[in-house]
Amino acid sequence: MYLSQLFIPITKDLPAEAKIKSHQLMLQTGMIRQSSAGIYSWLPLGFKVMKKIEQIVREEQNSIGAQEMLMPTIQSAEIWKESGRYDDYGEEMLRIKDRQGRDMLYGPTNEELITDIFRSSVKSYKSLPQILYHIQWKFRDEIRPRFGVMRCKEFFMKDAYSFDLTDDEAKKSYNKMFFSYLKTFNRLGLKAIPMAADTGPIGGDLSHEFIILAETGESQIFADKRIFEINLDKYDFSDASLSKMRKDFTEIYAATDEKFDEKKFNSEVDKKNQIKTKGIEVGHIFYFGDKYSKPMNCLIDDKSGKKISVKMGSYGIGVSRLVGAAIEANYNNGIMKWPRPISPFDTVIIPSFNKNNQENLQKAEKIYQELKKQNIDVLLDDVDENMSNKFKKHDLIGIPFQIIIGSKSEENKFEFKELNSESEMLSLEEIKSKLKR
Amino acid sequence: MYLSQLFIPITKDLPAEAKIKSHQLMLQTGMIRQSSAGIYSWLPLGFKVMKKIEQIVREEQNSIGAQEMLMPTIQSAEIWKESGRYDDYGEEMLRIKDRQGRDMLYGPTNEELITDIFRSSVKSYKSLPQILYHIQWKFRDEIRPRFGVMRCKEFFMKDAYSFDLTDDEAKKSYNKMFFSYLKTFNRLGLKAIPMAADTGPIGGDLSHEFIILAETGESQIFADKRIFEINLDKYDFSDASLSKMRKDFTEIYAATDEKFDEKKFNSEVDKKNQIKTKGIEVGHIFYFGDKYSKPMNCLIDDKSGKKISVKMGSYGIGVSRLVGAAIEANYNNGIMKWPRPISPFDTVIIPSFNKNNQENLQKAEKIYQELKKQNIDVLLDDVDENMSNKFKKHDLIGIPFQIIIGSKSEENKFEFKELNSESEMLSLEEIKSKLKR
Repeated sequence: MYLSQLFIPITKDLPAEAKIKSHQLMLQTGMIRQSSAGIYSWLPLGFKVMKKIEQIVREEQNSIGAQEMLMPTIQSAEIWKESGRYDDYGEEMLRIKDRQGRDMLYGPTNEELITDIFRSSVKSYKSLPQILYHIQWKFRDEIRPRFGVMRCKEFFMKDAYSFDLTDDEAKKSYNKMFFSYLKTFNRLGLKAIPMAADTGPIGGDLSHEFIILAETGESQIFADKRIFEINLDKYDFSDASLSKMRKDFTEIYAATDEKFDEKKFNSEVDKKNQIKTKGIEVGHIFYFGDKYSKPMNCLIDDKSGKKISVKMGSYGIGVSRLVGAAIEANYNNGIMKWPRPISPFDTVIIPSFNKNNQENLQKAEKIYQELKKQNIDVLLDDVDENMSNKFKKHDLIGIPFQIIIGSKSEENKFEFKELNSESEMLSLEEIKSKLKR
Repeated sequence: MYLSQLFIPITKDLPAEAKIKSHQLMLQTGMIRQSSAGIYSWLPLGFKVMKKIEQIVREEQNSIGAQEMLMPTIQSAEIWKESGRYDDYGEEMLRIKDRQGRDMLYGPTNEELITDIFRSSVKSYKSLPQILYHIQWKFRDEIRPRFGVMRCKEFFMKDAYSFDLTDDEAKKSYNKMFFSYLKTFNRLGLKAIPMAADTGPIGGDLSHEFIILAETGESQIFADKRIFEINLDKYDFSDASLSKMRKDFTEIYAATDEKFDEKKFNSEVDKKNQIKTKGIEVGHIFYFGDKYSKPMNCLIDDKSGKKISVKMGSYGIGVSRLVGAAIEANYNNGIMKWPRPISPFDTVIIPSFNKNNQENLQKAEKIYQELKKQNIDVLLDDVDENMSNKFKKHDLIGIPFQIIIGSKSEENKFEFKELNSESEMLSLEEIKSKLKR
């Protein structure tokens, strides 16, 4: 893609309410545009990042045998009355009357709807275990939407639901998802810590949040940094390994301020390993047994033919929120550097040229064609402005690798720079192999 | 995927309101499930088909330089008041009040919102032409939703918007999209006829519908069948070729009953070339100039610095509707056969086995592993039921290729059957190469 053709309305004017750096950066680089309070359009640059995150989340869900489907955004109020949550949910639920006067709502979450689908479809223990998920827009009518995509009204979320016959089986599904979440955040280039959490309006008695560290996060985090030294590769999906994995991760101290115990923290964690920072919740998993299946009569025949309420858990990842969270975690000292797997482009070519001398632009175009042939997703900055402005702009756009075609270029060597590192002179072949890695 | 693990609630009970074959088939094979009147959940089988259609639509949009983005589902009523359509739109628009009492709505289309984005972002002729698109859920509060996903309330749609400086340039964008639509429907394995159409609530004076033929379609179609003989490969994206292409396609007689002229039809079309059938609209394109840009003040500086209203068109493809339309066009005499590019699986293996003899199931599992290695998306029917029931079921599921492991199998040859054709005995290598094609 040529930058001059990309729909990327870069702006310097920031609204006063853009207080955190992800909100500012996303507006500045034209990733999003507010359409009304707490509701955003995703412009091409932001959209690309969100789609990459979505795809990694999807692949990791598929890899544990979860099946993708799609529930609608607009739900009938009836099923929420059945579960008892219609009145509980409060004003954050966007309530709607359709033209016939029926009570509808924009789903803030999908426990009721998935239970309704499951009870009408599955009758026997033979069909269990089962995990279904979808990646769909949700709506919460926040009274004070803020922080851009981090606390907005319309948001994109992956939510999965597990169905098992017994508590024991259900906890295996829970551990499987726990492990899959750690792998997902790893692949996204983010360091996430699982922490025991309250269950809130979803319910149940077992729950973990996955929190990534960022100084601008919403909650205070106290943790033992050795948690980042655990190597995920040593676990597999066997029951024993999954139990061990969850034990290993939850034995190491990590708590939000809500659950912080200073005495315990200081006695369990060496001073040199203590992390005191802030964090952003990017995933939340729940086990709630028959909280929905019981009132909604979602019954399964067990082996003896007895009807029992299916045991359920639910598992969320905030896909649109992760775009903001990744910025909070990776935007420092005026330089944004996207983790490679979710960067909007693999590399950017920045030629120095002007109206009267387009030699470098032509060189850049040749390199562009070469890289395209290798399936490398490359942006070519063909905008006629001085190099200092270009660099400032690309410090914000955050593509991790730059190929600079300017005064330092030699016949067959080009300046190759990874953001936050020194540049080096490399041949095109060397650049290709760096980018293919 | 093993069929026993697939979440595919096959049912024989059909509700009385399922009157057309796509609606019936989608419920029978567990592709969708109604969650409330005119609102459906997409279960894994239906979801897979819809995603394949979405991806082909996306690739063809990208190939003409259209840029993907995503606008939210919930819009402010303000911009609709600016364009003057808020009152016009009637009760099909789902109107919502948020918790602060503000007028919001669930977008039935996005001309206003894209104009709002464009006017705040683009100021100069240098940034034109531009085509932006998104694939997003829309809502129309139909008074009588019916025909399953064909006329439902919440539907998935690709809508694109073009922006040009002059009428002439804008018509080139229109022709480009016209051509891209023909290519898209071709790739989906569907025969679509473009027909001059009324513009309705979108507005403008130039519009074409793309209609695929199906006896159960909603409108009567009169056409010259030579339109299917035009080879798309002879055109390219040059202006001259695009003009010729549109001329070639629109010179051949084709009309819905609304615009049907019997005398003209009989004089222009040989009896032997006359098609009289029904059709389903799957795409609709509009050119409406400054209908939105003028009232909404979406101004561009032209070369002389004069501010002029940008010239716009909009271009829709009904992605969820196409799933139903593809069934209407390909489900005949009790047998559904998916066009290959959008089939939920590439092939199904159907072994004959029972509790006491699992030899064929084991053979099937080996073939399954071999095909998986070749990246062939294969379904293995490991359900213990008799072959006659299996065949009936797969006649509905509609995977175009079957590998049958039963009485006819030899040591190294397997029965390979394309739906609606005779089966043949092939080696695994031959099967692989048939499926890779």
